[in-house]
Amino acid sequence: MDLNADVGESFGGWTLGDDAAILGAVTSANVACGFHAGDAATARRACALAAAGGVSVGAHVSYRDLAGFGRRFLDVDPAELVDEVIYQVGALQAIAAAAGTRVRYVKPHGALYTAIAHHRPQARAVVEAVRTLDADLPLLVLPGTVVEEEAAAVGVTAVVEAFADRAYEADGTLVSRGQPGAVLTDPAQVAARVVRLATEGTVEAVDGATVAVAAQSVCVHGDTPGAVGIATAVRAALEAAGVPLRPFR
Amino acid sequence: MDLNADVGESFGGWTLGDDAAILGAVTSANVACGFHAGDAATARRACALAAAGGVSVGAHVSYRDLAGFGRRFLDVDPAELVDEVIYQVGALQAIAAAAGTRVRYVKPHGALYTAIAHHRPQARAVVEAVRTLDADLPLLVLPGTVVEEEAAAVGVTAVVEAFADRAYEADGTLVSRGQPGAVLTDPAQVAARVVRLATEGTVEAVDGATVAVAAQSVCVHGDTPGAVGIATAVRAALEAAGVPLRPFR
Amino acid sequence: MDLNADVGESFGGWTLGDDAAILGAVTSANVACGFHAGDAATARRACALAAAGGVSVGAHVSYRDLAGFGRRFLDVDPAELVDEVIYQVGALQAIAAAAGTRVRYVKPHGALYTAIAHHRPQARAVVEAVRTLDADLPLLVLPGTVVEEEAAAVGVTAVVEAFADRAYEADGTLVSRGQPGAVLTDPAQVAARVVRLATEGTVEAVDGATVAVAAQSVCVHGDTPGAVGIATAVRAALEAAGVPLRPFR
Amino acid sequence: MDLNADVGESFGGWTLGDDAAILGAVTSANVACGFHAGDAATARRACALAAAGGVSVGAHVSYRDLAGFGRRFLDVDPAELVDEVIYQVGALQAIAAAAGTRVRYVKPHGALYTAIAHHRPQARAVVEAVRTLDADLPLLVLPGTVVEEEAAAVGVTAVVEAFADRAYEADGTLVSRGQPGAVLTDPAQVAARVVRLATEGTVEAVDGATVAVAAQSVCVHGDTPGAVGIATAVRAALEAAGVPLRPFR
Repeated sequence: MDLNADVGESFGGWTLGDDAAILGAVTSANVACGFHAGDAATARRACALAAAGGVSVGAHVSYRDLAGFGRRFLDVDPAELVDEVIYQVGALQAIAAAAGTRVRYVKPHGALYTAIAHHRPQARAVVEAVRTLDADLPLLVLPGTVVEEEAAAVGVTAVVEAFADRAYEADGTLVSRGQPGAVLTDPAQVAARVVRLATEGTVEAVDGATVAVAAQSVCVHGDTPGAVGIATAVRAALEAAGVPLRPFR
Repeated sequence: MDLNADVGESFGGWTLGDDAAILGAVTSANVACGFHAGDAATARRACALAAAGGVSVGAHVSYRDLAGFGRRFLDVDPAELVDEVIYQVGALQAIAAAAGTRVRYVKPHGALYTAIAHHRPQARAVVEAVRTLDADLPLLVLPGTVVEEEAAAVGVTAVVEAFADRAYEADGTLVSRGQPGAVLTDPAQVAARVVRLATEGTVEAVDGATVAVAAQSVCVHGDTPGAVGIATAVRAALEAAGVPLRPFR
Repeated sequence: MDLNADVGESFGGWTLGDDAAILGAVTSANVACGFHAGDAATARRACALAAAGGVSVGAHVSYRDLAGFGRRFLDVDPAELVDEVIYQVGALQAIAAAAGTRVRYVKPHGALYTAIAHHRPQARAVVEAVRTLDADLPLLVLPGTVVEEEAAAVGVTAVVEAFADRAYEADGTLVSRGQPGAVLTDPAQVAARVVRLATEGTVEAVDGATVAVAAQSVCVHGDTPGAVGIATAVRAALEAAGVPLRPFR
Repeated sequence: MDLNADVGESFGGWTLGDDAAILGAVTSANVACGFHAGDAATARRACALAAAGGVSVGAHVSYRDLAGFGRRFLDVDPAELVDEVIYQVGALQAIAAAAGTRVRYVKPHGALYTAIAHHRPQARAVVEAVRTLDADLPLLVLPGTVVEEEAAAVGVTAVVEAFADRAYEADGTLVSRGQPGAVLTDPAQVAARVVRLATEGTVEAVDGATVAVAAQSVCVHGDTPGAVGIATAVRAALEAAGVPLRPFR
């Protein structure tokens, strides 16, 4: 199993999260590319830490929205979005190379991640960007989404991920953030769910049903209070259960 | 001889210069990378035009200063400057590849270009960035400058350029912009000077002296009124004089 | 009748439109506040020109999106939007005072203008900002919109405007930009329509019907090719028809 | 005596400092205006907290450099700097009014603060901005500086401040940050120095000499580790010594 988390989200004078600690727990690192967070020096430090720890680097691409941390839908022209994704991944590729590693996948961030689950022109734009960059570069996606379809349509590899700290509906979708219980915060509970997911391929939905969730990676958040504690607990539980931890790529 | 000019300096809703016209006259294009001007879509259009015309693409790297168009000295930490140059070149490398070409050189822009003529830590940072990216990537510089020394010291290729529309002092330096006559605007006069430079390796200084100016490229400005007229006149004069025009790389 | 146009939309190294020429034709100037365009020096020049010409200054507030010129919907939190509008108007109030004038109204720009025609939380946010700043400050709006309702609900003055160069449907709404004939470009035709609007309060819709359009101001665009020609033609036609031209406030 | 500290330096997704805690200790708050830090919502929260606690609000104006947190010298054109300061103060004036208070002084931030101690054109620009906004608005400055001279020359009130956590040379200037011992971190020591400053008007310099330091305000930093502890200790010590604490204005 692979664990992924967001890193490199500091910016200039502002620090966010504890990259070194998170990178000690995960196997894939979604490194901010400067559009929602991250600057060149922050990205290089994150890549160097990842390289030193054998953690795979992914390009965490976003809408161009530093003031909103990429968390707000932006109705960007899809043709421009193609180029903006290429720009971000290219920038991180050079930074990663300077840090002794390379970009192994692309993961959209925040509102862009959410939008391309259903917004077909933007989903197609992200897929087109990845295909243009390197058709072998995988795209990390939520299963059952429009972006997964679009990737399949042109032969871009979509790697599906699950969310360690999110509750699931009986149909395998995530409980909306606004709902009570949507986000889980108890490290032991989260760890137990991830072990079950990794060993049985299922999660318990909010209504108690057993749901099959296929995932090649599990996202643990890096920027919430308690993020390091959860990531560390998840890793320890997987190791205790004998689940091998390695980057999905 | 090579002629270079700045392109890709539009940004979002703002258009600057006539890239298509300038790219019809020059052999190397300094494409803005987003820090002083340019956005991903603008850069891609400029690269595509350059590729179609057989024009070499260079990364026109800058201080991070959109509001000042990169024309103001910024006392950036040299260690951060290294990463910022890598970031910009990497972004343009991916954009250029998407447009069917690649980045063949690096040229600092505006105040950064001016600063690294004498500011050793920043000059060293730019050279270090280029060396890290690709030790074979040439850096376009003003001859007799600190950045030329720093490049030589670590084996980075410094390609020296002359300025088509600038007056020279008897010692081979440029007349300061503030001085009367520092900038030449008559296309015929500029063209004649470039032909002499290309065929004899000399320019006439403001005091009438003959100055030897070694240059592998001549910069024609792309963003001034009359820029296209001057670039076109220079190219026509060089062709009439039988000087072959081709990218320095 | 009042004529309004957008000005102050240059930014740093980029020039957009011909503010001096447009300000010679209109009676109200929507001055960019720095979120979609404009910087402090540009805004001050625009305000000074407006002051010299007896043109009223309005704050042209926007989403925070320089890269998109404020033309893309941004799903900003309404509570933040309240503060962002206050921030922009306050900045322009100080700039206008320095230029010897003051901000007499607020007009949302681009995608924000379009959104608040139907997006109630954002419309309410803009109205709340204006009410907080000064309940007597008028808000320039499209008639029949949600923002007009929200302004009426809390006693903020909504001043309705018509568009000189846009075609109208029989129900008084604008023909969508995507439709053929949505934007009129013939100065004489546009001028004749504005005279009819000013003298009879009607326009001819695309289907030939006569539509009543109440408007206290007519927007002439400042950033399109031919903008100055249209604005000048409109003003001349109104003067020839004996329609007094003065700021709505 | 007045104690001032920087607040409102969070930005979008990034939090910096603990405004509520610092505002419980100081009497004047330097609120970021969006050029080095701060956004409209952050500024409004800081102003509302200040208003609730009877703390005076000052406009903490800066170079336009979010990526560098305003800590890097920027060679901005003085004429543009005038307008940028006016823009920032105006924006904060509207935000402060919305929060039930008003801007009572201006304090330049970071590299701008440092520059105008000796850079006359920029010092003059800041003074000109304040004079244009309101000749009665005080400017918080380091004594013995060029900006103090420029303020005096045109009748702008310069209020001089001392630094609670900085070592002084025997000539009354601050020990450069690069020197060992330049920044004091022991709350008890800092508090004792401020009490001496408030009651005797002197500090002990690094060479043991007694230096007279006239100050109408003492700056305690808000953004360093231990900032809250130091500010709280200073306030408690001043109260214990019977020194009345109130805004300088």
